[in-house]
Amino acid sequence: MGRWEPNARGRLEQAALELYVERGYEQTPVAEITKRAGLTERTFFRHFADKREVLFGGSGGLEELCEGAVAAAPASATPMEAVAGALDAAAVVFEERGDLVRLRQGVIDANAELRERELTKLASLSGALADALRARGVDDLTARLTAETAIAVLKVAFRRWIDEGQEPALRPLLAECFDVLRTASARGAVDAG
Amino acid sequence: MGRWEPNARGRLEQAALELYVERGYEQTPVAEITKRAGLTERTFFRHFADKREVLFGGSGGLEELCEGAVAAAPASATPMEAVAGALDAAAVVFEERGDLVRLRQGVIDANAELRERELTKLASLSGALADALRARGVDDLTARLTAETAIAVLKVAFRRWIDEGQEPALRPLLAECFDVLRTASARGAVDAG
Repeated sequence: MGRWEPNARGRLEQAALELYVERGYEQTPVAEITKRAGLTERTFFRHFADKREVLFGGSGGLEELCEGAVAAAPASATPMEAVAGALDAAAVVFEERGDLVRLRQGVIDANAELRERELTKLASLSGALADALRARGVDDLTARLTAETAIAVLKVAFRRWIDEGQEPALRPLLAECFDVLRTASARGAVDAG
Repeated sequence: MGRWEPNARGRLEQAALELYVERGYEQTPVAEITKRAGLTERTFFRHFADKREVLFGGSGGLEELCEGAVAAAPASATPMEAVAGALDAAAVVFEERGDLVRLRQGVIDANAELRERELTKLASLSGALADALRARGVDDLTARLTAETAIAVLKVAFRRWIDEGQEPALRPLLAECFDVLRTASARGAVDAG
């Protein structure tokens, strides 16, 4: 057993992100990350399965935050309102960490393997949102569709936020995307059957 | 150069799918696929980058089909109507190949690496749909959101179609999903801003 290291996880995340930006993700071995963080490889692997997971360590917390927000939505909230509130809560976190979020996204965008992992994490978030909606009594089909639609909105709003230099803020972009979606859905698909 | 093999690609796909179902994806080397198909490994790698791509060789054709359907939608069609028409065209193909589609999905569902690849292919399809909408003069934000929403609908309807033993057919499930989405979006997100 190693000794306890204060904020080892945060130090490893910070060191990894710096190195991924400076040298590229593929060119950064775990040994370099632990050297920069002043920690051992044993400590690294106590916190992360591999160097890819360093970038996605926050996704569990994000899921919990979103699930909690859906559960805490007023009883009168529609399913779409409940997930919109969840994304709004997530956006507050993204905005607070704006510069780090942008650096991290640059690393992900540059690597196909990381982009695949990101899509998997978003699929997991969709499943968590659908579970939270079903727990509110929402029927299965509406829960799945609303959750997948929320992820669609999140992807588009988040990408625009990153591409536009984080101005305007993410929260108004999310609201705008839900507005556009409402308009687009209202007249859509009448001849799809 | 090898000699020309009639329908080599189709024979390799068929052999690979059979073996993936019988033995599992991970336990099937390329050499077994080519042996079953009566072809050489050289022929295999002329058609596919790796054994994973055998399962996704149709995705390029699916993208072209969907892009073509969006382009061919009446000028009066809304963006959502245009993508709904594209999914409807894709659903016809899925329904025609129902048993193969189900076998293939079972292989993908059983393997995390294949599930990640499937998500990447769906993201690519979303990009193609957005491009096709922009080519119709649809603004960028509406194009992206409509395309991502179409993928959301496709994922949910397709999953239900597979889970329910392909009855009812996929096309009515898609129409039902667009209906549910319209209802869910209409009252949603009013307090998201």
